[in-house]
Amino acid sequence: MTYNELRWNPLLGLWNIVSSKRKTRPWREEKCPFCPGSRELGYGWDVKVLDNMFPALKTDAQKATDTRDILKVKSGYGYCKVVVETPEHVGDLDTIPFDNLVKVIKAFQEETEKLCEDRRIKYVFPFRNKGELIGVSLTHPHSQIYALPFIPYRIKSEIANGRTFYKKNGRCLLCHILELERSEKKRTLYSNRSFTLFMPSFAMWPYETHIYSNKHLATLPELSEEQVRDLADVIKVTVAMYNSLFDFDLPYVMAVHQAPCNLKHNFFHFHIEFYPIHRSKDKLKYAAGIEWGTWTFTYDDLPENKVAELANAIQRASQRLATAGYTIRGDHRQVT
Amino acid sequence: MTYNELRWNPLLGLWNIVSSKRKTRPWREEKCPFCPGSRELGYGWDVKVLDNMFPALKTDAQKATDTRDILKVKSGYGYCKVVVETPEHVGDLDTIPFDNLVKVIKAFQEETEKLCEDRRIKYVFPFRNKGELIGVSLTHPHSQIYALPFIPYRIKSEIANGRTFYKKNGRCLLCHILELERSEKKRTLYSNRSFTLFMPSFAMWPYETHIYSNKHLATLPELSEEQVRDLADVIKVTVAMYNSLFDFDLPYVMAVHQAPCNLKHNFFHFHIEFYPIHRSKDKLKYAAGIEWGTWTFTYDDLPENKVAELANAIQRASQRLATAGYTIRGDHRQVT
Repeated sequence: MTYNELRWNPLLGLWNIVSSKRKTRPWREEKCPFCPGSRELGYGWDVKVLDNMFPALKTDAQKATDTRDILKVKSGYGYCKVVVETPEHVGDLDTIPFDNLVKVIKAFQEETEKLCEDRRIKYVFPFRNKGELIGVSLTHPHSQIYALPFIPYRIKSEIANGRTFYKKNGRCLLCHILELERSEKKRTLYSNRSFTLFMPSFAMWPYETHIYSNKHLATLPELSEEQVRDLADVIKVTVAMYNSLFDFDLPYVMAVHQAPCNLKHNFFHFHIEFYPIHRSKDKLKYAAGIEWGTWTFTYDDLPENKVAELANAIQRASQRLATAGYTIRGDHRQVT
Repeated sequence: MTYNELRWNPLLGLWNIVSSKRKTRPWREEKCPFCPGSRELGYGWDVKVLDNMFPALKTDAQKATDTRDILKVKSGYGYCKVVVETPEHVGDLDTIPFDNLVKVIKAFQEETEKLCEDRRIKYVFPFRNKGELIGVSLTHPHSQIYALPFIPYRIKSEIANGRTFYKKNGRCLLCHILELERSEKKRTLYSNRSFTLFMPSFAMWPYETHIYSNKHLATLPELSEEQVRDLADVIKVTVAMYNSLFDFDLPYVMAVHQAPCNLKHNFFHFHIEFYPIHRSKDKLKYAAGIEWGTWTFTYDDLPENKVAELANAIQRASQRLATAGYTIRGDHRQVT
């Protein structure tokens, strides 16, 4: 018997996902299940959406009967999808064909729409783990989508803070931050017509950057065809920047934050957050006692110093992309 | 010029600590600054409290003048202390002399009292990072104490949830959880007169365990002499359990959660949380997209299966401690 269940943390007010099958999942096996010709995938495709074979959540999860008072348990109902981004075994979002990246974002859009039609699903979260240091078990380029039966803690926190700001100031918090960043220009790195990339003043990870949509919008499905292409462009440039920063492909988490399913309000602003885990070329930023024990991050430099390093990297990245035949759609920060 | 400042994350409602000097701190250097005879320490001591040479917070931090609207910046005022636990260069809390461990806890008590006398300090957080995989830069046995000018996010969350539970049920949330665990006995691992060790139903890390005080109390200074010794006992047994689990010293974070300075209420319950980062003997639990991007943890097994493993480890640990001349003060879970 396998279990997929949610367990309630009453100290923090959040859900954990418990899934007993996942411990048996393949760990860096030799034969890649995402390469063409595998049983699941066959041949003749460029981008493929699959069900995760070892899902944390599933639609036939057993019913949870054991509610144990404050230690609530719920069925681990949900979906875990994999988006295979290219038939080629190596690469990253800066090297796969631009049209593939556009298709990946469209897959995020379509899956969001489809998964939100299931009334038990409250939140759709597309994300990408890159690099073995992040814990990636399969290195073939792929993203993931989790459809959750609850609004996760971090998103609830963003909504709560957005609501408070909106009630006080009559406008969207992220629209306001974006305006500050675009006028101050201290931490902006790149912008095209639809999106702006910058390091937030409050970066938790040394090289953390955020992509905000220039216009206020809340979810992936709202993006027009042209905005999807602009999003593909800014993601491509961001990842090229990271991979130009040092002499190696930089590990990172890409987290896509959209509004919950069926939430009608105007204080959630679509954005993407990148968390690389390095603090220099040969050192990692470790989350340890102060980070895990209090959820307070220590940043061992000034964010603005890291912006200067990233400005240098993005300049080299745009040259590299140009050499490879890709012309960036926007303007990057100049090295001063 | 070095900077020690706090930066406000308005999306999540929390502070980051920014400190430009820390990037120059020694990284696993050869000569240990915590061994006897170093300039700072001299000879003839067993436990020593020092100021961190590369503090994230300090009392002469420059004034922050740049408030930038919603992107608030504050002075990085505070204290970062190191508690060197033994003159010997190797060991862990299960192998240092019991009296040293008692002295370490007393140092936590005294520092909490002293640091809370500074009115700018709102929270005192003792913690311990163990193991190079956790990111420890100096391996000589030591704990740390951060005195923060704000109540950190995770503690605020515990207070908020404790308050809600208290208002609804007229009792302390952790007293209630402890009663459930002690009656169900599904996840208890050890208890002596004053403390109980168990794996919470809502463990985020595969081998996470918590120590709750049996009686309701809120802060370290409230512990009596005998309770301090019982706390030293349960910590010694917990760490011996972890170091008996596999064939190596297990890396972990130990986070001591006490009530904020000068907070007078009865819904914060003193406890210690241990976060080991392994999910099996040769695999780590990585925090990646779903964990960092949504603050939702996936647990790849049933917590109760891990309890069985820890029961086995604690049995071996108590034998090992007995052989070394230490008699545990309480009763451990029996292997079934």
